[in-house]
Amino acid sequence: MGFTFQINNDIKFKHNNNFLNKANNYRPTIQHNNIKPIAIVQLKKNSSSLEGYGIEQIDDITNLKKHHLKRNDKLILDFGDHQVGKFTIDIKSVGSPMDSPLFLKLKFAEMPAELAHNSKDYNGWLSKSWIQEEYIHLDVLPKKLNLKRRYSFRYVEITVLDTSPKWQAVLDNPIVKTESAVHYDKSLIPDLEDLELKKIYQVGLKTLHECMQDVFEDGPKRDRRLWIGDLRLQALADYSSFKNTNLVKRCLYLFGAMPAENGRIPANVFISPENIPDDTFLFDYSLFFISILYDYEKNSSDKEVLDDLYPIAKNQMNIALKQVNSIGKLELTDDYPVFIDWSNDFDKTTSGQAILIYTLKQFIYLAQLKNDSDINLYIKKLDIINNYSINYLFDEQTGLFVSGSNHELNISSQVWMVLAQLFDKNKNREIMKTTLKRLFPVKNIATPYMYHHITQALFISGLKNEAVELMKSYWGKMIQLGADTYWEAFDPDHPSYSPYGNPILNSYCHAWSCTPVYLINKYLLSE
Amino acid sequence: MGFTFQINNDIKFKHNNNFLNKANNYRPTIQHNNIKPIAIVQLKKNSSSLEGYGIEQIDDITNLKKHHLKRNDKLILDFGDHQVGKFTIDIKSVGSPMDSPLFLKLKFAEMPAELAHNSKDYNGWLSKSWIQEEYIHLDVLPKKLNLKRRYSFRYVEITVLDTSPKWQAVLDNPIVKTESAVHYDKSLIPDLEDLELKKIYQVGLKTLHECMQDVFEDGPKRDRRLWIGDLRLQALADYSSFKNTNLVKRCLYLFGAMPAENGRIPANVFISPENIPDDTFLFDYSLFFISILYDYEKNSSDKEVLDDLYPIAKNQMNIALKQVNSIGKLELTDDYPVFIDWSNDFDKTTSGQAILIYTLKQFIYLAQLKNDSDINLYIKKLDIINNYSINYLFDEQTGLFVSGSNHELNISSQVWMVLAQLFDKNKNREIMKTTLKRLFPVKNIATPYMYHHITQALFISGLKNEAVELMKSYWGKMIQLGADTYWEAFDPDHPSYSPYGNPILNSYCHAWSCTPVYLINKYLLSE
Repeated sequence: MGFTFQINNDIKFKHNNNFLNKANNYRPTIQHNNIKPIAIVQLKKNSSSLEGYGIEQIDDITNLKKHHLKRNDKLILDFGDHQVGKFTIDIKSVGSPMDSPLFLKLKFAEMPAELAHNSKDYNGWLSKSWIQEEYIHLDVLPKKLNLKRRYSFRYVEITVLDTSPKWQAVLDNPIVKTESAVHYDKSLIPDLEDLELKKIYQVGLKTLHECMQDVFEDGPKRDRRLWIGDLRLQALADYSSFKNTNLVKRCLYLFGAMPAENGRIPANVFISPENIPDDTFLFDYSLFFISILYDYEKNSSDKEVLDDLYPIAKNQMNIALKQVNSIGKLELTDDYPVFIDWSNDFDKTTSGQAILIYTLKQFIYLAQLKNDSDINLYIKKLDIINNYSINYLFDEQTGLFVSGSNHELNISSQVWMVLAQLFDKNKNREIMKTTLKRLFPVKNIATPYMYHHITQALFISGLKNEAVELMKSYWGKMIQLGADTYWEAFDPDHPSYSPYGNPILNSYCHAWSCTPVYLINKYLLSE
Repeated sequence: MGFTFQINNDIKFKHNNNFLNKANNYRPTIQHNNIKPIAIVQLKKNSSSLEGYGIEQIDDITNLKKHHLKRNDKLILDFGDHQVGKFTIDIKSVGSPMDSPLFLKLKFAEMPAELAHNSKDYNGWLSKSWIQEEYIHLDVLPKKLNLKRRYSFRYVEITVLDTSPKWQAVLDNPIVKTESAVHYDKSLIPDLEDLELKKIYQVGLKTLHECMQDVFEDGPKRDRRLWIGDLRLQALADYSSFKNTNLVKRCLYLFGAMPAENGRIPANVFISPENIPDDTFLFDYSLFFISILYDYEKNSSDKEVLDDLYPIAKNQMNIALKQVNSIGKLELTDDYPVFIDWSNDFDKTTSGQAILIYTLKQFIYLAQLKNDSDINLYIKKLDIINNYSINYLFDEQTGLFVSGSNHELNISSQVWMVLAQLFDKNKNREIMKTTLKRLFPVKNIATPYMYHHITQALFISGLKNEAVELMKSYWGKMIQLGADTYWEAFDPDHPSYSPYGNPILNSYCHAWSCTPVYLINKYLLSE
């Protein structure tokens, strides 16, 4: 998830301490590795890389100590792959005695393009506090500089803003002590014959690894919190790779513990300095609590979690169903919008209706597990909602779902109705074929989140080749542009697009983009 | 002292561990006070203040918590007087949950004028690392921000570079924990009837207090090391006020312990990360080691120190005397220049000759104390040097000393020959009267160091009123311009003069300017 702007800071929240204690019990032990850089590099114009910036080696890393750095000298260290962790480096002075402090700037970048931009030029609405840049004074050398913050990066640009005319700074022993809830190991990468797919899988696995921290974070560089929408996809990818189900359980309890007083689950929660629910609420995200619990139970059959969290899931469904009218139409309100995608250039009402069907089906499965005597009420509701969707939203003439009062045809409506399996597989296949013919190629969608759902809809309607082709043209394209991990935002038609107007703010390692791990496992290896 | 540029980093130094241990034994216990700001202020145009910038209160300090700070908001806290120490402040967030780090800039300023300048505009040769400005990211609030570095300031400007659109930062409980080797107490200020002089004394005492740290520093904001030239004046001021003679002793041992292999004492030493002699050598500064030992013995009669350090003092004199030719003329060399003053716009040879006489007389006193059998050699040398000075440097026609091959008449030559007491008091009085008539007013001198010697020369030649007038027009003028402590550099004709081209780099609390404490005590209170 990125950013959805709501301020509701008058809302009161419940705190279920029993659930918070359980969430705390499942906190992961953070794993560490000490990683050294592989080269001293510089930016290089490269038209096939993101924004035209690649790197080239200018010196062997073993020569680092030979660089005597004075005012305005700078070096870029390349750690060889994406890293999340804390940075340390030894710094000493050479020349005359150190007659002034050392003034350093350190800039951490996931992609070379970030290094080509000056943070001073950024003045967008998103907080510039996210820019991974530090200004440091060291009064006395030698010193082991031990930065306390965690950074998400592959490159570290170190600029000596000043020494004095009498001495120079020398760097040695740069190390990142990585952090993740899980251990990344190449043995986790399946031996796919298609090497392009294997690479796509590997980068997805690295992305997931980097985002698995004290919770499933949405992005280790920026945002760094637990969003429901990202969690749902991360958990699916985790079940087929790292299998750290305790972390999913921890996150389920965190959401379950802190609904608003009106029962709605917030779209995200913070865990520092304490567990704090955000004041952002999204209709589809609240419902996805049900999905996450459903996926978790499918994977783990955990009676304790089901008993604890089923009432919370039921609450989300009951709140959502209040917005369904007598003929089965979902009526959305401004204070509880659907997210679906960052783009607001398409009508989302049919997508919202589909997500209600998708999650209501999952809820009914959970209600069966719980032997909930109310189950028939939900089955009946589903029937009404399905009927409305078939009778009012599906357009026989085009073979596609329409959305909104203007009967808009968009990809998202088709995709979500297929994922909701309103129709059977054959009909879904027809819908997706029509979608491919009439609505493709995908335009003006910049989120791997939406691309995931499109790809999955192709897979479940049996269009495996088309799904693989889309995966290669989307996630594969990021790799061609230099991705070590997948990005928060990517529009293949506009590779330099940033939702924030500047790549320094982009998160180039973002949870909701890790899903090739799940898609490849589920639809190419398991079936 | 400020900065004299030499690089001699191939020079080897001796290390006398016995002396270094003694220096270590006299390390002071640093005293602390917790000081709170007195007001929230803003810059105000004020033509009678330095560079035209004063301050005005905009809010009561008790209202600090009521300021909810968002992107680009800033506050200036006024601590009411000059402070040297470490800064802490409590910071919390209000509004929605903190969904981004807090990015802060803190700028510490001794004078309001510093706040009117942007550090980005400074590009001079002196290291910009001295600018007291920090950029801080705080990932989690609430937090007690505890800055590890020591700052020298009265004002703290805190700028919120960014929060996010959803929350604001709130500051509370700002404190500076002050540091000094001595306790500043108003009871140390003599009850002078002349309130202008009393204020001049008080500001000098505050200046001295701020510069007395682990050693006598030259400036707590910038440079921050032990220079011989500053030490000599600080010690004199200390004997008549704080009377922390152990700190003088510590500093004497530091210099005595680390001469270069050729015997020369360096102009300054560093004490972090260990005791390190600088590679700068000044002819007059090396000789002032004798003066400091002389003044110390006059004040303390310390046989152990005399026995330990007399050989070092003798060495300095022997090295200096090698540069005196057979008729008593000092012949200076480029690798061992005299400092005298920052200005290089006047000829310094006669001043150098005078300092040799000044220190040779002091050395002979020490040789007497030590019953040194070589004493007659020095007395004979003094005689030759005196004779040369009288016969070749004093111009009977003008009644003034000339300097250099062009027979330049400058104030410094007269002042130092008077301080050296080449002639008796009556003749000195004539010389200084002629100086007042022919060479005054002082022009193009920007150091309190030179002004001190001019003032003292007036006092010792009996021109008390003129001395007081000069003191009032120089140190008094700094007070009128807003000084809480005296400055490193001040030219009354060009109050905005900075030796570094920007007041952000100026030290507005500098050791060599504290001497009204000594002058008032010695010439107005003791006589």
